Amino acid sequence: MNQSYISEDAWKIVETGFNPDRVKASESIFSIGNGAMGQRANFEEHYSGPSFQGSYIGGIYYPDKTKVGWWKNGYPDYFAKVINAPNWIGIDITVDQIPLDLFTSKKILQFTRVLDMKTGLYSRSYELEMPNGIQLKASVKRFLSMKEGESGAIEYNIELLSEKASFDISPYLNGKIKNEDSNWDDPFWNHLEAEVNDQSAFLLSKTLKTEFHVCSFMHAELSLNGNPLGDPCKNFNNENKLGFTTAINLSKGDQLTITKYGGYVTSLHHDEHQLKSVAKQKISSSLEKGFQSLYDDHSDCWSQIWALSDIVIGGDLNAQQGIRFNIFQLNQTYTGRDDRLNIGPKGFTGEKYGGSAYWDTEAYCLPFYMTTKGPEVAKNLLKYRFNQLPKAIENAEKLGFNGGAALFPMVTMNGEECHNEWEITFEEIHRNGAIAYAIYNYENFTNDTSYIPEKGLEVLIAISRFWSQRVNFSNQKNKYVILGVTGPNEYENNVDSNWYTNYIARWTLKYTINQIHKGKTQWPEQLQNTTKKTNLKEEEIDRWLEITEKMYLPFDAKHNVYLQQDGFLDKEMMTVDQLDDDQRPINQNWSWDRILRSPFIKQADTLQGFYFFEDDFTHQELEDHYNFYKPFTLHESSLSPCIHSILAVRLDKMKEAYELYLRTSRLDLDDYNIEVEEGLHITSMAGTWMSVVNGFVGLKIKEGMLSLKPKLPQHWNSLSLKINYRGAVLTIHHENNDSTFQWSGEKPLDLLLNDHPITVNSSKKLNPTL
Amino acid sequence: MNQSYISEDAWKIVETGFNPDRVKASESIFSIGNGAMGQRANFEEHYSGPSFQGSYIGGIYYPDKTKVGWWKNGYPDYFAKVINAPNWIGIDITVDQIPLDLFTSKKILQFTRVLDMKTGLYSRSYELEMPNGIQLKASVKRFLSMKEGESGAIEYNIELLSEKASFDISPYLNGKIKNEDSNWDDPFWNHLEAEVNDQSAFLLSKTLKTEFHVCSFMHAELSLNGNPLGDPCKNFNNENKLGFTTAINLSKGDQLTITKYGGYVTSLHHDEHQLKSVAKQKISSSLEKGFQSLYDDHSDCWSQIWALSDIVIGGDLNAQQGIRFNIFQLNQTYTGRDDRLNIGPKGFTGEKYGGSAYWDTEAYCLPFYMTTKGPEVAKNLLKYRFNQLPKAIENAEKLGFNGGAALFPMVTMNGEECHNEWEITFEEIHRNGAIAYAIYNYENFTNDTSYIPEKGLEVLIAISRFWSQRVNFSNQKNKYVILGVTGPNEYENNVDSNWYTNYIARWTLKYTINQIHKGKTQWPEQLQNTTKKTNLKEEEIDRWLEITEKMYLPFDAKHNVYLQQDGFLDKEMMTVDQLDDDQRPINQNWSWDRILRSPFIKQADTLQGFYFFEDDFTHQELEDHYNFYKPFTLHESSLSPCIHSILAVRLDKMKEAYELYLRTSRLDLDDYNIEVEEGLHITSMAGTWMSVVNGFVGLKIKEGMLSLKPKLPQHWNSLSLKINYRGAVLTIHHENNDSTFQWSGEKPLDLLLNDHPITVNSSKKLNPTL
Repeated sequence: MNQSYISEDAWKIVETGFNPDRVKASESIFSIGNGAMGQRANFEEHYSGPSFQGSYIGGIYYPDKTKVGWWKNGYPDYFAKVINAPNWIGIDITVDQIPLDLFTSKKILQFTRVLDMKTGLYSRSYELEMPNGIQLKASVKRFLSMKEGESGAIEYNIELLSEKASFDISPYLNGKIKNEDSNWDDPFWNHLEAEVNDQSAFLLSKTLKTEFHVCSFMHAELSLNGNPLGDPCKNFNNENKLGFTTAINLSKGDQLTITKYGGYVTSLHHDEHQLKSVAKQKISSSLEKGFQSLYDDHSDCWSQIWALSDIVIGGDLNAQQGIRFNIFQLNQTYTGRDDRLNIGPKGFTGEKYGGSAYWDTEAYCLPFYMTTKGPEVAKNLLKYRFNQLPKAIENAEKLGFNGGAALFPMVTMNGEECHNEWEITFEEIHRNGAIAYAIYNYENFTNDTSYIPEKGLEVLIAISRFWSQRVNFSNQKNKYVILGVTGPNEYENNVDSNWYTNYIARWTLKYTINQIHKGKTQWPEQLQNTTKKTNLKEEEIDRWLEITEKMYLPFDAKHNVYLQQDGFLDKEMMTVDQLDDDQRPINQNWSWDRILRSPFIKQADTLQGFYFFEDDFTHQELEDHYNFYKPFTLHESSLSPCIHSILAVRLDKMKEAYELYLRTSRLDLDDYNIEVEEGLHITSMAGTWMSVVNGFVGLKIKEGMLSLKPKLPQHWNSLSLKINYRGAVLTIHHENNDSTFQWSGEKPLDLLLNDHPITVNSSKKLNPTL
Repeated sequence: MNQSYISEDAWKIVETGFNPDRVKASESIFSIGNGAMGQRANFEEHYSGPSFQGSYIGGIYYPDKTKVGWWKNGYPDYFAKVINAPNWIGIDITVDQIPLDLFTSKKILQFTRVLDMKTGLYSRSYELEMPNGIQLKASVKRFLSMKEGESGAIEYNIELLSEKASFDISPYLNGKIKNEDSNWDDPFWNHLEAEVNDQSAFLLSKTLKTEFHVCSFMHAELSLNGNPLGDPCKNFNNENKLGFTTAINLSKGDQLTITKYGGYVTSLHHDEHQLKSVAKQKISSSLEKGFQSLYDDHSDCWSQIWALSDIVIGGDLNAQQGIRFNIFQLNQTYTGRDDRLNIGPKGFTGEKYGGSAYWDTEAYCLPFYMTTKGPEVAKNLLKYRFNQLPKAIENAEKLGFNGGAALFPMVTMNGEECHNEWEITFEEIHRNGAIAYAIYNYENFTNDTSYIPEKGLEVLIAISRFWSQRVNFSNQKNKYVILGVTGPNEYENNVDSNWYTNYIARWTLKYTINQIHKGKTQWPEQLQNTTKKTNLKEEEIDRWLEITEKMYLPFDAKHNVYLQQDGFLDKEMMTVDQLDDDQRPINQNWSWDRILRSPFIKQADTLQGFYFFEDDFTHQELEDHYNFYKPFTLHESSLSPCIHSILAVRLDKMKEAYELYLRTSRLDLDDYNIEVEEGLHITSMAGTWMSVVNGFVGLKIKEGMLSLKPKLPQHWNSLSLKINYRGAVLTIHHENNDSTFQWSGEKPLDLLLNDHPITVNSSKKLNPTL
């Protein structure tokens, strides 16, 4: 099913040979970003073949009016769209008046793309014959500076292989862009001012409705065989495509180099009236440093990132490449410096799904950033939601809830719900549970006990209030039920009593009650403040308790399993292995009607609960549920295989765990779901990381202690990684069923290794003292 | 809750006094139509206040690309929209250069609208003072000829009350129109040619995509104090608004009359290249006859309609006006002459809901047309679906069904499904049952046994095949279930085991099997042809039988009722009387989320089944179910109160039956749902008729015999109506608990009166021979 053309390499993603059919896929795979902005791997020179052009700026969005068949009360007004920003990478090149264009060239003699994950460099080289017979070769390097944030650089080298030819080189900035994902083909940008000034260009723009101000900028310099060329011939500004054109004649062997700097400065970080001058400073500073030095800084940043976050897999190049690709992309998407940003499902690699924060953030991404970066980054993710609490309360009010109940959005940019479908926005309420769980997860892992009293409890109360209003008492069942929900498995819509939702709702209520009790003794003053601020009443807590005691959890005695939802067993219980290959993925081959009525599971649902709340169940229960649900699970969501992989490790199904791991880690590289051209599955990459760290390494916190149970796939020789744990770094190396540790902390670290307590002393690399 | 400004009158709808706030409502209520076209009661002269302009032509539609948040496989491509057609009624009038416009006039001294239902005449009179102080009065008459079909006429009289004034009179045809209900603001029309020729104007247009050709036409003549005025001053054509202007000076007491003829000829009925010449003939013929004679012909048609369809209620003017208004509008909407037309939910009075055929046709409208017109009209409605069977099979194939299974559309113009929402199109499959039921209903009532062998069986087989594939066997329940449906109660979406759907599916399968058995002995050759044509296999029939034997019907032993759907009792069983008035209608005040989770019923669902299949249940069962569901039923669908009213009569709850009757019969006149300005609830008007005929008269067919059980609301003195029954007319008069009959048939008619067999002899008016 998978279709890979990427060569195996430990640190590099390499594509060899040019095939127009995979240009859009490669544009996704070779995407680059620096947390503040990102670009699909579009060519700098003109390309007339099928391509998906995309440059995106973190936090800049457009509230696209929702598109619904029949608007009903409570539907969100808009779907926040990630906006395609002006393109600053473009360089039009003509050779003897013919556009240089890989799609129309007569012959492509060589073509290679390389994404060097170690240093964050995207490079490309090619050799071709033009329609007019001219032959040339080129090599291009590009990066978005991890250090500078707001700028990037390109070095574009051309060597003429024919006797001679005249070149027109036109580096430009292009505001004539549009979103592929747009509901109404509205313009998203209003361009206010365009300036071309010598070799620099500036485009001042404002997003419509949201009124973000952005100055896109670029500056380009040319040199011939290392000698700078003089002034540009001609500036142009053709309807917001602006730049300059230099004409030059090359002879065989001549080396022409175009060095281009560009980026965006925005009103998110600067005074909107100062943007052009800030952009000019950015250009000056880039020119001062020059390409190499900028690159060195950038590469240093990547060294620091890898120093903490690398995972080294011995004996499996394919798996190694997969995990590094995932870690690399996660770092390109979010750096954790800005608590207004979050991790969109496609990061900066595409437009689909819009928004920037899904429950993916809490359920999948938080552990990665918390463990490979540090608590402050994880805390920024929690603060993102805390800051949006007032909007989450408004979201709930729009649906008829009150008294400070919060429903965090399914999709958002600014806290407002912004998705098109009622079956998602109104019903996929389990997201509220994941947001509560993340607060627990953060405190549990970091031992930072300050967050809950300061901020977290307020969020927990608001979510508990939501659950308390969202349940109703069924006289029939003599239990509390939650009706009309969509669980994580979106191949069911509007079901009653989804086990996962009920379970996490009950857990939230219990956890909130526990925190309040804890506060009474440990931080009474902060508790009092929060109680006062939220106007929390004792009766509310009493009701929460009553709900936790009487929450309904659908269970089937015959199969001895919890049911994904009421009535699940009324379906025709066809299993995945009975499906012909040509039916899969069913979301591309079956009508929605047929999918909804089938027992097929898009992504782990009941098992997602077993992953979160593993300690609540016996090993046998886990095994029973895994075995029951696996045959129906299609993993057509990218968020699914990682959970199954982790649980498979627990159940010692190592072959299965490994296959699922490969599927998750190489989902995009091998294009399992035949959709990589739309962009990468960024948030699920954190799931890949989880499947190594929580799966093969078996990392978890057990009664406050770090617990590890390393267990590698058969042909992995070794596994090494680092954990940023409670203020110091634990290096873990596992090889030949033997774990060795290095601990940077001053005090020895007590941990559980395969359920045995051990102590790791600081400073030296040691086998653990058992 | 209701807000009526319409005076009570047995034959007229009268509005007195001008109020701009009710212009849009009156535009709906005073709508006129002749089955082939219709118009909202827009003013002829310019009106600058809030108004909803609408002229519609039967069978002319636009396939508007569907608007969905997230397209999934099987979603319909388009939503067929009723198109607003060029307006031919317009007459711009200026008085001393100031536009005559009720919205901007200084004073309105008198204003009256009258819809004379007896003759189908819409008239209006007013007296006003213009902003420039000029006073005048006017009276306007308008009708769309029931005889001619394609044309109508207007007579507009103006009398000057001031000393003198100059008038510019500009009758026009206006192609600058757009739909309020448009998904993408696409243009729906392409105007090909405009011609103004003397006092006539023609606009040749083509609908986009569907390519219907339409020639809109008009001709106007002016006379002063009865003397024709000469040639028009000036023709104009301003971007497809075309006509002529005549200037004239009037003195006090002068009477200016504008007589205007207009209409549409279309490629549905004529060669598209001949349309203009046909239109010219229409104008000539109108001119030859003149307004009065055209009106006389039109009025004669209405006499004939009323002769068969009138219902006379003694002693209740309000109810009398209500029932006539419903009968009048149903006749304006559909005449039954053209088997390509059907009865759109808003007829020609608005755009909402698009399409022309819903299940309303079979479940509500068929009995009205069958009984007040005759079997040929009912048969045309059945043929409409028969002709669309291939498309219904395609609709099912798009969802993954096969082997000739048909899913008739929820909404259609040409047989293709065309609605925006999956929860409706994929899931509201009970419509298929209503289409099968209509075949039964037709044969049962008319005793025309030829339709099923000729056409009906093919439809029944295709629908049975659908049910057979749509059920699945639940091992859990050891029964066949139907998962993922929306029942008639659209305040539930995607439920499992909806009782009504399961019941009508089982009924269809049984009925189809019975018809096949009957065919074996009674029409073996036609059966063989159909079997061959449909490739029907014995195994299929075996499976149908098995399904009928094992169909699951949700039942609750405690309440001793069938449940609307599985899990209905898990809801918080709040009743309608616990709802504050300001919460209703909940579809305007509650979020969709809250509605879906509530137990509230939009329209009769389980009780709809009790209405269709009354004979399957005991009186006690009916009573139990009525009493159980009534407290949850909001009647927020116009199709609901009539069913409850009929059943209430059965249960001798006469006060309740009457209240529900008034609500259905005066739904639009009294604007119960605060939405009449969007158009009238045409199809529910047939439900009103049912509530009199099947309710108060108790008409049904019982074992092949006409059965009546007249029972009137307390203060009705009498009730008279006619029934076109099996080739002759039965007149029924009920008064003082006594029924008298007149029968036009040659042979005596045996019927059941209050379950007693009686015989009604022909020719004479008689009390029945008991």
